[in-house]
Amino acid sequence: MAWLQDVKWPEVEAYLKEKDLILLPIGSTEQHARHAPLGTDTIIASRLAEDAAAQANVMVAPPLWFGWSPHHMVLPGSISVRANVLQELVFDVIGSLAQHGFQRFVIVNGHRITNLPWMQLTAERAQSELKVRVRIFDPAYMQKEVAQTLGFGPVGHAEELETSQLMHIDPDLVDLSKAVDSDPHETPLYQVDPRFPQDTLCYVPSTRDQMREIVKRTGGSTGHPTKSTAESGSKLHGHLVNRLVQVISQFE
Amino acid sequence: MAWLQDVKWPEVEAYLKEKDLILLPIGSTEQHARHAPLGTDTIIASRLAEDAAAQANVMVAPPLWFGWSPHHMVLPGSISVRANVLQELVFDVIGSLAQHGFQRFVIVNGHRITNLPWMQLTAERAQSELKVRVRIFDPAYMQKEVAQTLGFGPVGHAEELETSQLMHIDPDLVDLSKAVDSDPHETPLYQVDPRFPQDTLCYVPSTRDQMREIVKRTGGSTGHPTKSTAESGSKLHGHLVNRLVQVISQFE
Amino acid sequence: MAWLQDVKWPEVEAYLKEKDLILLPIGSTEQHARHAPLGTDTIIASRLAEDAAAQANVMVAPPLWFGWSPHHMVLPGSISVRANVLQELVFDVIGSLAQHGFQRFVIVNGHRITNLPWMQLTAERAQSELKVRVRIFDPAYMQKEVAQTLGFGPVGHAEELETSQLMHIDPDLVDLSKAVDSDPHETPLYQVDPRFPQDTLCYVPSTRDQMREIVKRTGGSTGHPTKSTAESGSKLHGHLVNRLVQVISQFE
Amino acid sequence: MAWLQDVKWPEVEAYLKEKDLILLPIGSTEQHARHAPLGTDTIIASRLAEDAAAQANVMVAPPLWFGWSPHHMVLPGSISVRANVLQELVFDVIGSLAQHGFQRFVIVNGHRITNLPWMQLTAERAQSELKVRVRIFDPAYMQKEVAQTLGFGPVGHAEELETSQLMHIDPDLVDLSKAVDSDPHETPLYQVDPRFPQDTLCYVPSTRDQMREIVKRTGGSTGHPTKSTAESGSKLHGHLVNRLVQVISQFE
Amino acid sequence: MAWLQDVKWPEVEAYLKEKDLILLPIGSTEQHARHAPLGTDTIIASRLAEDAAAQANVMVAPPLWFGWSPHHMVLPGSISVRANVLQELVFDVIGSLAQHGFQRFVIVNGHRITNLPWMQLTAERAQSELKVRVRIFDPAYMQKEVAQTLGFGPVGHAEELETSQLMHIDPDLVDLSKAVDSDPHETPLYQVDPRFPQDTLCYVPSTRDQMREIVKRTGGSTGHPTKSTAESGSKLHGHLVNRLVQVISQFE
Amino acid sequence: MAWLQDVKWPEVEAYLKEKDLILLPIGSTEQHARHAPLGTDTIIASRLAEDAAAQANVMVAPPLWFGWSPHHMVLPGSISVRANVLQELVFDVIGSLAQHGFQRFVIVNGHRITNLPWMQLTAERAQSELKVRVRIFDPAYMQKEVAQTLGFGPVGHAEELETSQLMHIDPDLVDLSKAVDSDPHETPLYQVDPRFPQDTLCYVPSTRDQMREIVKRTGGSTGHPTKSTAESGSKLHGHLVNRLVQVISQFE
Repeated sequence: MAWLQDVKWPEVEAYLKEKDLILLPIGSTEQHARHAPLGTDTIIASRLAEDAAAQANVMVAPPLWFGWSPHHMVLPGSISVRANVLQELVFDVIGSLAQHGFQRFVIVNGHRITNLPWMQLTAERAQSELKVRVRIFDPAYMQKEVAQTLGFGPVGHAEELETSQLMHIDPDLVDLSKAVDSDPHETPLYQVDPRFPQDTLCYVPSTRDQMREIVKRTGGSTGHPTKSTAESGSKLHGHLVNRLVQVISQFE
Repeated sequence: MAWLQDVKWPEVEAYLKEKDLILLPIGSTEQHARHAPLGTDTIIASRLAEDAAAQANVMVAPPLWFGWSPHHMVLPGSISVRANVLQELVFDVIGSLAQHGFQRFVIVNGHRITNLPWMQLTAERAQSELKVRVRIFDPAYMQKEVAQTLGFGPVGHAEELETSQLMHIDPDLVDLSKAVDSDPHETPLYQVDPRFPQDTLCYVPSTRDQMREIVKRTGGSTGHPTKSTAESGSKLHGHLVNRLVQVISQFE
Repeated sequence: MAWLQDVKWPEVEAYLKEKDLILLPIGSTEQHARHAPLGTDTIIASRLAEDAAAQANVMVAPPLWFGWSPHHMVLPGSISVRANVLQELVFDVIGSLAQHGFQRFVIVNGHRITNLPWMQLTAERAQSELKVRVRIFDPAYMQKEVAQTLGFGPVGHAEELETSQLMHIDPDLVDLSKAVDSDPHETPLYQVDPRFPQDTLCYVPSTRDQMREIVKRTGGSTGHPTKSTAESGSKLHGHLVNRLVQVISQFE
Repeated sequence: MAWLQDVKWPEVEAYLKEKDLILLPIGSTEQHARHAPLGTDTIIASRLAEDAAAQANVMVAPPLWFGWSPHHMVLPGSISVRANVLQELVFDVIGSLAQHGFQRFVIVNGHRITNLPWMQLTAERAQSELKVRVRIFDPAYMQKEVAQTLGFGPVGHAEELETSQLMHIDPDLVDLSKAVDSDPHETPLYQVDPRFPQDTLCYVPSTRDQMREIVKRTGGSTGHPTKSTAESGSKLHGHLVNRLVQVISQFE
Repeated sequence: MAWLQDVKWPEVEAYLKEKDLILLPIGSTEQHARHAPLGTDTIIASRLAEDAAAQANVMVAPPLWFGWSPHHMVLPGSISVRANVLQELVFDVIGSLAQHGFQRFVIVNGHRITNLPWMQLTAERAQSELKVRVRIFDPAYMQKEVAQTLGFGPVGHAEELETSQLMHIDPDLVDLSKAVDSDPHETPLYQVDPRFPQDTLCYVPSTRDQMREIVKRTGGSTGHPTKSTAESGSKLHGHLVNRLVQVISQFE
Repeated sequence: MAWLQDVKWPEVEAYLKEKDLILLPIGSTEQHARHAPLGTDTIIASRLAEDAAAQANVMVAPPLWFGWSPHHMVLPGSISVRANVLQELVFDVIGSLAQHGFQRFVIVNGHRITNLPWMQLTAERAQSELKVRVRIFDPAYMQKEVAQTLGFGPVGHAEELETSQLMHIDPDLVDLSKAVDSDPHETPLYQVDPRFPQDTLCYVPSTRDQMREIVKRTGGSTGHPTKSTAESGSKLHGHLVNRLVQVISQFE
């Protein structure tokens, strides 16, 4: 199907006679080091949604370009909206669509770990109050199986995983000559990547001071972005699109 | 210049050494009758901002696809976010950008009259609390001079003004064969268009019942959309882009 | 009829068997230069409501003396309440009266342009959630026809329009010897008065710095208050009372 | 001195060079049985403030006609605003005045017990956040000594205490022929009047069901309003005015 | 019966077939001078509830250790939660229990005067919105009769009333050798204790400056804690437990 | 060290000269099937904090017995507080303690996955606004290494992991004869336990309908609680206490 914003209301009316599922791509506008653009997360979420929607023949709501990115405010251009504001916004978007008959929603999150807490609270509230069903599709949780086949390190920021995926989507958006690698700062008993099999504290966004350290070392990334290739990105994107199509087809 | 989401943070840093102005295109996702797409308002706001930014060499923030559209909820696909949620969201967007040094903001509103109240409250709050400057650019208020030269009627909804402009932007988005004309329902002492020279009550969005009447008559529009032409749209769009460039250049 | 606060509940019960309309006078307490009192806006709203109610035989709710006046805080005595607080307050007032059977509300705004955004949001919310009808009567929008016959300039602040009206209501409240004229500060493409026929940006209250400039020049007014006369005020007030009576009689 | 709304800002500026205290009269609009008007509480608060201000030569802010009256909503004309909305409103009023240099505030409450909780929370917040001083003057707490000399029963609603005071203020507002006496409903271990010397649960406004019982018996009052006289009202009012003058003079 | 947290859900189900009343002990964590622990208020509320519940065979909800204590923040360890947050929290606790069939709630307040305003607002809201019944049991209001028989002074802070009661509950929690007596600071026309028979202003928590004065004099208490004895505490506690049992048995 | 509520303020003052770290045990009151009490989560969090504090010689704040448990409301006795209310509450607790000089906070969560989203938002806000450091210690994330050594299945609800731990803490709280085993309902591409190595959607609390299914099968648990033993519980608890002590010692 198509983006909701590109169709006229009679097309939505017709769609709702057949289906009641819609994808909600949500990302952020935040620094992605010197090699990737501020819109990386929303671009990825939008393209994932678009590609899966084409295969599964479902609708996609307009993207939300703003996420919760308090720690990335240390670099110019980053935008962070308070998590409770995002909750109310997305609740209203789901609530509006539910009034028309949409019943199943898949939030496609391009901003990974950091956007999850407010999305989880929103999803539950929508399920309880609006009697709809909501699932949250997140690359960091859905690439656990493919990531190890690509020879990539853990989820960081602007690392080889999302940089590769972006190179697959549009190579002009990435300037790999500016990429700087780094090993993640070792915090004992703390790992962000959901693939991590050992004991860990729970994720809390870095403080501004911690981020300033990262900026000094790499310009904003953590991980090994220089390993990025459009080929790996293609595999990763393909895996995620397949997973999203599976989620759509199994969602009743 | 370019869309903020397409550049990397060092480009924003460089821009901020020269300029501190940014455009914020905001629209809605709401029914535009059977002949125009749900995204009409955001598509227009985005294109206005993009074209003026190219001429004036300024930056544009990512578009916001969601507005306050309570009355349009009578038709499928319309999305309405509570006005106070939109206020908090846009306040955070402005606040984030202000942290990086942006000082002058032009909100480019594609949703016209209905989005204005919450934008006015947001603009004042940003000016008071963030010590920035905010202007609100709205087609309904900036086309007063050109509208009478086009032989068009007053601002309605999905009428010949915005339909023409959309046809200029992308003719494939409009299906004029589905357009239905109507004379506005006459409410005594009440007119929405800011061009109106007589006494009037102030704008309050229509009730659901009033909207259902409109839907019965025209499928969602008020005005004479069948008069729309890409040529008129080109003149209207050109006028608005020029005005926006003027606003940018006069804004200190 | 009478002010709600002066009657006993059985009189309200009797009234509700005949009618379901009530006027809500709302103003502000804010500086009106050296020649007019802080309560000007509420005094005008109250008197408009009172006079129209006497003619139309309808009830008037107690006045609200507090409005949204952020920019007027530069001079002592001005009170500004956050717009969202005013929205909740007036929503509760309307909601309380709706519980008793009032169905039609006319907000009579004495504070003109600045109070409108929060009133519009409140009116729509009341219409949607309470299933009542709300109209907003504002002098700046209802004097467009008469203003040009009085030879007065555009709406400013404490200018000849509201000063004349106040002189008609109670000449002792005005000390015209303290009035200072000024031509409005010329902002390109920006005019506040809804009579203005050319292109304009939308109204945003002045910044504190802009207001301090005005205070230096005139002590708080913009316009030509020295032109004020009780005779002109009488015509203006009479026109507005007639319009309000018309609005009441046409409101179903 | 005078009401704030009746003076011009230079008079406030002059006042603030001498004094920094202001009275805030706050009441309610709520049923007062068949014999007293809906505005009773605000009329009393306003008159108390006005008379004490005249003696003590201090300023009075415009009255607030709306209070927290959830239980009185059972009778037509009553208006109840949520307590948290009132808190924000009065906080903004105090905050606005504090910006100009007012430092000491006496809230004059005409609605007695029911308005106190939200006033206490507001007073503390203003003291903490605005570094001002706030006192709450309430007739029920300030008439403990005089009430027993008048031969009156405890504080109820529209009882002989406030009815007498209103008869003193304006006998035309009361129609004593409609007054109905009642003994308070006996709840074990529960008494509202702060004069009560025995153990008691704390005040919680009556439920709607409890109020409907009262309405059946008396039309909305509790107590013995038929005992009311303008003479007793004069003594009571005089006592309260004296107390308020004392509070003002002892407030540093 | 037992504490809710110690039983399994089938026991609650069985209880609800017989009864629908539950006690809610709420206190604070705040300085109680050098002789009593920070948890004094919650310890007292919990023990009062526990002892009365054992006699009356009713359930007790888990204690809330946090109250509104803005003025006590001058000494380390004190915790103060905003009153409106506490209102929402306790509303949700009552609302959750009401969903299961609890209909009657007795809030047992260990923090006395200061916690009352937000509890009163919460109780009314619960009664109105949830259709339950709520009573507020407060030692300061329920010891009026016994206090005079113990030869104790008025309610202050960490004074002989609550210190004695704590010594009865657990003598190890009190170190009477650190207690310092003081006569309450005399504010004209102001007394906190609800036993006070003369005219008074209403309670507002002390300012930080006022509290710092008290800390200098006594380390945080007001009153005569050196008079405290476990015997007096036993009488006081016994009186309060009896009153609470009475309240429970009379509550329908 | 000791529980904050059991000490007097001078002890806190002395502690703050040495250390600035405090533990915040937070759980829930919610159904734990027929074999474990409603307070399970808070009892575990409190005991974990208490035992680690004794070893590491740090302070523990009073426990919070209320969590976010919307899905458990299907069984009597469960209490669920809105997530945003919990955020404000814990923010105020941290903010109060930060005023006294506490700088490092470890939230000890007894309610596992469901409490995490609001805790993450609170932790970040406290770090940003209060300039403190916050870590979140959660059993589900800190038992990944030990769980596989116990031969236990994944994290469910009232399963063998928390039941064993509770049996170790106090065997009288558990009635294993009422325990019912179940295999988790298989949702494709969805697993809650953070040990899970495959691709998964993100956690969203079950709907009421899903919970009612679970209640029918097992009375509220998911997993194999009949496998629980105090011995396994002792190993699990010991592992978690050691991990918490490690977290405390590594936290600067």
